[in-house]
Amino acid sequence: MKLWFTENHSPNVTFSMKVDEHLYTGKSEFQKIDILQTAEFGRILTLDGLVMVTEKDEFIYHDMITHVAMATNPSIKKVLVIGAGDGGTVRELTKYATIEHIDMVEIDKMVVDVCKEYLPQTASKLDDPRVHLHFEDGLKFIRSKNDEYDLIIVDSTDPFGPGEGLFTKEFYGNCYKALNEEGILVNQHESPFYEEDALGMQRAHQRIIGFFPICKVYQVHIPTYPSGHWLFGFASKKFDPIKDLQADDWNNLGLQTKYYNTDVHVGSFALPNYVKEQLEDVE
Amino acid sequence: MKLWFTENHSPNVTFSMKVDEHLYTGKSEFQKIDILQTAEFGRILTLDGLVMVTEKDEFIYHDMITHVAMATNPSIKKVLVIGAGDGGTVRELTKYATIEHIDMVEIDKMVVDVCKEYLPQTASKLDDPRVHLHFEDGLKFIRSKNDEYDLIIVDSTDPFGPGEGLFTKEFYGNCYKALNEEGILVNQHESPFYEEDALGMQRAHQRIIGFFPICKVYQVHIPTYPSGHWLFGFASKKFDPIKDLQADDWNNLGLQTKYYNTDVHVGSFALPNYVKEQLEDVE
Amino acid sequence: MKLWFTENHSPNVTFSMKVDEHLYTGKSEFQKIDILQTAEFGRILTLDGLVMVTEKDEFIYHDMITHVAMATNPSIKKVLVIGAGDGGTVRELTKYATIEHIDMVEIDKMVVDVCKEYLPQTASKLDDPRVHLHFEDGLKFIRSKNDEYDLIIVDSTDPFGPGEGLFTKEFYGNCYKALNEEGILVNQHESPFYEEDALGMQRAHQRIIGFFPICKVYQVHIPTYPSGHWLFGFASKKFDPIKDLQADDWNNLGLQTKYYNTDVHVGSFALPNYVKEQLEDVE
Amino acid sequence: MKLWFTENHSPNVTFSMKVDEHLYTGKSEFQKIDILQTAEFGRILTLDGLVMVTEKDEFIYHDMITHVAMATNPSIKKVLVIGAGDGGTVRELTKYATIEHIDMVEIDKMVVDVCKEYLPQTASKLDDPRVHLHFEDGLKFIRSKNDEYDLIIVDSTDPFGPGEGLFTKEFYGNCYKALNEEGILVNQHESPFYEEDALGMQRAHQRIIGFFPICKVYQVHIPTYPSGHWLFGFASKKFDPIKDLQADDWNNLGLQTKYYNTDVHVGSFALPNYVKEQLEDVE
Repeated sequence: MKLWFTENHSPNVTFSMKVDEHLYTGKSEFQKIDILQTAEFGRILTLDGLVMVTEKDEFIYHDMITHVAMATNPSIKKVLVIGAGDGGTVRELTKYATIEHIDMVEIDKMVVDVCKEYLPQTASKLDDPRVHLHFEDGLKFIRSKNDEYDLIIVDSTDPFGPGEGLFTKEFYGNCYKALNEEGILVNQHESPFYEEDALGMQRAHQRIIGFFPICKVYQVHIPTYPSGHWLFGFASKKFDPIKDLQADDWNNLGLQTKYYNTDVHVGSFALPNYVKEQLEDVE
Repeated sequence: MKLWFTENHSPNVTFSMKVDEHLYTGKSEFQKIDILQTAEFGRILTLDGLVMVTEKDEFIYHDMITHVAMATNPSIKKVLVIGAGDGGTVRELTKYATIEHIDMVEIDKMVVDVCKEYLPQTASKLDDPRVHLHFEDGLKFIRSKNDEYDLIIVDSTDPFGPGEGLFTKEFYGNCYKALNEEGILVNQHESPFYEEDALGMQRAHQRIIGFFPICKVYQVHIPTYPSGHWLFGFASKKFDPIKDLQADDWNNLGLQTKYYNTDVHVGSFALPNYVKEQLEDVE
Repeated sequence: MKLWFTENHSPNVTFSMKVDEHLYTGKSEFQKIDILQTAEFGRILTLDGLVMVTEKDEFIYHDMITHVAMATNPSIKKVLVIGAGDGGTVRELTKYATIEHIDMVEIDKMVVDVCKEYLPQTASKLDDPRVHLHFEDGLKFIRSKNDEYDLIIVDSTDPFGPGEGLFTKEFYGNCYKALNEEGILVNQHESPFYEEDALGMQRAHQRIIGFFPICKVYQVHIPTYPSGHWLFGFASKKFDPIKDLQADDWNNLGLQTKYYNTDVHVGSFALPNYVKEQLEDVE
Repeated sequence: MKLWFTENHSPNVTFSMKVDEHLYTGKSEFQKIDILQTAEFGRILTLDGLVMVTEKDEFIYHDMITHVAMATNPSIKKVLVIGAGDGGTVRELTKYATIEHIDMVEIDKMVVDVCKEYLPQTASKLDDPRVHLHFEDGLKFIRSKNDEYDLIIVDSTDPFGPGEGLFTKEFYGNCYKALNEEGILVNQHESPFYEEDALGMQRAHQRIIGFFPICKVYQVHIPTYPSGHWLFGFASKKFDPIKDLQADDWNNLGLQTKYYNTDVHVGSFALPNYVKEQLEDVE
């Protein structure tokens, strides 16, 4: 049967996946949630019709949103994850025995419930005793936090819809405040290629550099995201992701990863000229 | 008007571009040739319905197929380019005053003629006096060459259809023979992500390592190619693309590039674990 | 969410419907069965990816496959329905108090079960005490029948796949045998517009005229079938659908129909010249 | 190459045709004009992205917009055609030796020029000496006409965009005035199936019955128009299209038609109940 899910990557570009089965559809207080069984990518989660996670390539996103910070500062103990309802980021974090406490703040409980049922591949570690789930607005949650976290990961949806507030100046300011002196912020940073995404990326970068002394951007190949060229922001009060990379320490941990390694860590910060120029335009 | 061009990126994945105008269609002895004016990517060239070049992102491909070798060995004087009928690879090569002679062997003259008319952005330098166009089969052309070139760039179509022979063992053996002792081979290497592309990539790698002592693979973000994650093979008799990189020399040339820089050069060789494993499986 | 079901109406024409939810997917011994909730057509049933029934326009098909014969011979008492797993044809037949016995032979029990659960609009009358369901091959069922039915309705899928045998000469011969002297055969007859459908229609017509003295074809507007221009074959041993139409009798029954009326009955036998020529070509 | 033209038949339904070549694109003062070579339908003309004419099925539309009136009143001598830039309606009219004068009023000269070049199949008779082309607004043209025409054919685009005014009360009133006492108006009447089309049809019907004593609607199978179920309005001061049909006269003319015949003429006025109800709702 020709049943296809289509996502606009730009107003004039679409990306379509053959669907074997529409496993779940629901509407939460915040957004429409769907799980599709696709022929190429396994199960996928969409929110308001946009792909969030696919079983086939989620490892890339979750490796890269997590291990870069962890390999830069192996002493990270307390982590705040904002968004990330599918659980993939938490799954990667729980691989580190040294992490003692993970607060995960997801505004939409229904996303977590649906992922637990349909995406055990990502949601499997949400029951780890170190993980504390908070179903509330990340913006509000963080306001009362001071000097508390070693790492904040902002694993947001796109900067429109429910995730919009996670791209504001106020929010990044509160992230700074909530981090301790060794604090690192990793931010889902959109893409440099299509115009709208690039504007979102520039706005995020511009706002973050207003607070953090060290702000770098690194890139990753995520085939199911628009253009396949995705960025993360690395901001910190103290650590430089290249100079302070503890490659040997990280490699000695013996973690199994399918995308990340310490060479990729370094290489991913080498940005193409056109991306560097987009960043410099707002610095 | 809703007129869209669609390409299958895998049997179960499609990528579609809104078309403003179908500027040219023709059928050569070898393949169907079309030029489309798209809303997002400017003009695109398709061969047998597959995207070869788009005005919007061709700079990425052509930067990376050319400058990595040139920055590794700035003494390159004689180059052979196989395929590359759009002229973009030659355009980049002609930026180097030190290059004295470029043989470009394209089997399909009609591709070159069409690109000269419709894609001046890539085809503009095909009239450079150092460029010698040969409209013949690259496989045959190279058989009679011995110890002649400093650099061979295989800018082929996919390993099926007219470009098929450019992925054979015999062909890579002849490339080795045609190169002098300082010779470098750069090969369009397909992609690691979708199954069929990954098999093509593994076959190419396996065949090349049978001849060359140094064989590396580097990656690049090309949004309009399947998965956006594309690879090139770097093989050489003598030069290592990292250790021998002449970064200062290259930067002193002052060339304008939108993707390539000497940091990206190094970073692009840092491959994700799953790609390293695909390569190791055939080594 | 952009989730669309697409059906090829010809190799070069597609018809697509926005899907709100994929309610059911299953695979029977005979075919793939899916129920989709569409935005325009309500629920639809597809078999092997081809639309069989939509809630929005099924009334057209079921009116016209049933009432034309019933208004021609109001004395019909015993009916055989072949195929028609969705139940819509039986639903229309049960509106006639004068019908005493309906044998419905559907090869695929799973189709009936799925329709009972998901398409009560069509399947609601399958429990009428006059209806006798036989889950077996219509071709075999009919072989042993002689001089038994007043009406046979062949409500088949397309003439390839499980429905293929229902378009053979042997089958139509058995229909003739199974009908009594007043017998009428109504046959789902494909479409005159796209080439493959027209060939199927011509084959069916050619085979039926080999057996029945009276063979007419009538047309109907079914928007969700290829071209929207659909045909039924009316064959009988005695009755002419125009001359013998008992319009007053039928109108006195006071049945509620959304498409059929006795003027449409007559009008539907007035075929365009190009359709008449297709039929004459095989007569 | 997968190049497809897609038209929305409703917001939730699309119809797509494989395109071999985009032969022409242009923008007139009034609308975007495109000619596409399709694999199934031959050349098609689209205005603002909507299909107006295809070589494969235009005969249906042009037969039925013309011959119904001509067979009802064989004495028609002076005809006004509004719209119809492709020339197909005029082509059919010129088959009648008895017609002396045809005024064709098309607002957009570029449509006529493009059709003359790319669609000779329909535009071939625009040079007939009886045909007088007026490139102006049909609404204005008709205001000064009184008691002049035997037949007016309104061959408009849809009731939005440039064709909008051709669906107003003022316009139909002027048509009445421009017709003589034997005058007939034939109006392109949209479709009963999809909601928006049905509303347009009802509005047209309601406005026309305000002026003409005889108002009938007839139907036709046009596969490339939304739902394939299309309607025309027949309004007149004197003639009833059924009672006054001069079947023998028309058949004696010996005209070659692929769709129309005098049986189809009668049959096409037999409307399904749901269409009759739509009309009665506004009568």
